[in-house]
Amino acid sequence: MLSPTPRTTLGRKKHRAVTDRSALHAVLDEGLICHLGIVRDGVPLVLPTGYGRDGDTLYLHGSTGAASLRAATQDVDVCVTVTLLDGIVYSRSVNNHSMNYRSAVVFGTAKPVVEPEAKLHGLKVLTDHLAPGSWEHAREVNAKEFAAVSVLALDLAEASVKMRAEGPDDEPDDVGADTAWAGVLPVRTVFGAPEPSADLSPGWTPPPHVTGRAATAR
Amino acid sequence: MLSPTPRTTLGRKKHRAVTDRSALHAVLDEGLICHLGIVRDGVPLVLPTGYGRDGDTLYLHGSTGAASLRAATQDVDVCVTVTLLDGIVYSRSVNNHSMNYRSAVVFGTAKPVVEPEAKLHGLKVLTDHLAPGSWEHAREVNAKEFAAVSVLALDLAEASVKMRAEGPDDEPDDVGADTAWAGVLPVRTVFGAPEPSADLSPGWTPPPHVTGRAATAR
Repeated sequence: MLSPTPRTTLGRKKHRAVTDRSALHAVLDEGLICHLGIVRDGVPLVLPTGYGRDGDTLYLHGSTGAASLRAATQDVDVCVTVTLLDGIVYSRSVNNHSMNYRSAVVFGTAKPVVEPEAKLHGLKVLTDHLAPGSWEHAREVNAKEFAAVSVLALDLAEASVKMRAEGPDDEPDDVGADTAWAGVLPVRTVFGAPEPSADLSPGWTPPPHVTGRAATAR
Repeated sequence: MLSPTPRTTLGRKKHRAVTDRSALHAVLDEGLICHLGIVRDGVPLVLPTGYGRDGDTLYLHGSTGAASLRAATQDVDVCVTVTLLDGIVYSRSVNNHSMNYRSAVVFGTAKPVVEPEAKLHGLKVLTDHLAPGSWEHAREVNAKEFAAVSVLALDLAEASVKMRAEGPDDEPDDVGADTAWAGVLPVRTVFGAPEPSADLSPGWTPPPHVTGRAATAR
């Protein structure tokens, strides 16, 4: 179970909080990017970045544009949000239009991972999320690259999941009037056909860990 | 031109800042949701929400989970980020894996739109972004709904666009070694077939403003 706290408790009707941990994991595992929020100079900064999950630890690429996060010598309060948009909800009234979605919001302190074995593991988790199979297929990280890269870890202790996954919720009068179409237009994220690099030597075909990914599109 | 400020200036190589306003508009117009960041009790909060653009004004749905934003009696510092993920970049080395993307980051103060004509216009802009054609097709907002809904406006004066739109950027040694596939796996957002509401009366077919949207998928 997720542990509700005042800042993960929800007030909106029809946007249900999901309180089991498997739902949180599912949203995080299906998303491709997260939006990382920090406070900088007293104002919010929200940047997209790569991430990966292992158990109840979320790893973040420290090499994002958030220089202030990289430079921090102490733990930084962050909010990491992953949103999957599933559909546009067309209602009989303009006012009841909505979106179907699943979103995970995680609060905590992002801690730099410095111990070499743990940092290498964090890099593998990040790679496995961004490009499953590449950790085994591509050239491994060398010492110089390893020293230059930055990995942050965030505990999933304080997190919430919200979702809407239903049809239009119209007023009875609007349903009766029957003057507009109502339904859901699904939204999905898909992978296209792999595009080989211009400098790739002839003879290569895209490997299964790339081509097979199309089947995992949602 | 966008006006660069210290907080919109970028330091990352290969992730280029785009400085023309049409690029900003294009990213905002193509995205479906934004991630709205605010500072609450000193820590960041990032929530997905609907938005729409008219000229250099970004409208936000005030009826998001950000209750503190709705309740605010003064202007609230926000950061609104819209990210379009365009591809996964597979490099010969794990370290050079990346993403192709376009992202817009907007800083400013979100101001409640209270003047009725302006608020109605904001609602139309929000609807036109979420569900083009619904403003004309669906039942209009009534007085009770209009009073209950909240619209925020954010000026696009302080904004930046970042993008990466290229193939792998491998080390010459890795290209020469030729031991791994390199290329880009495109990522796209698409609309599926419209799903009529369970309580829709027979005889309706999805109208063109819904079905025609598939052609606009990216």
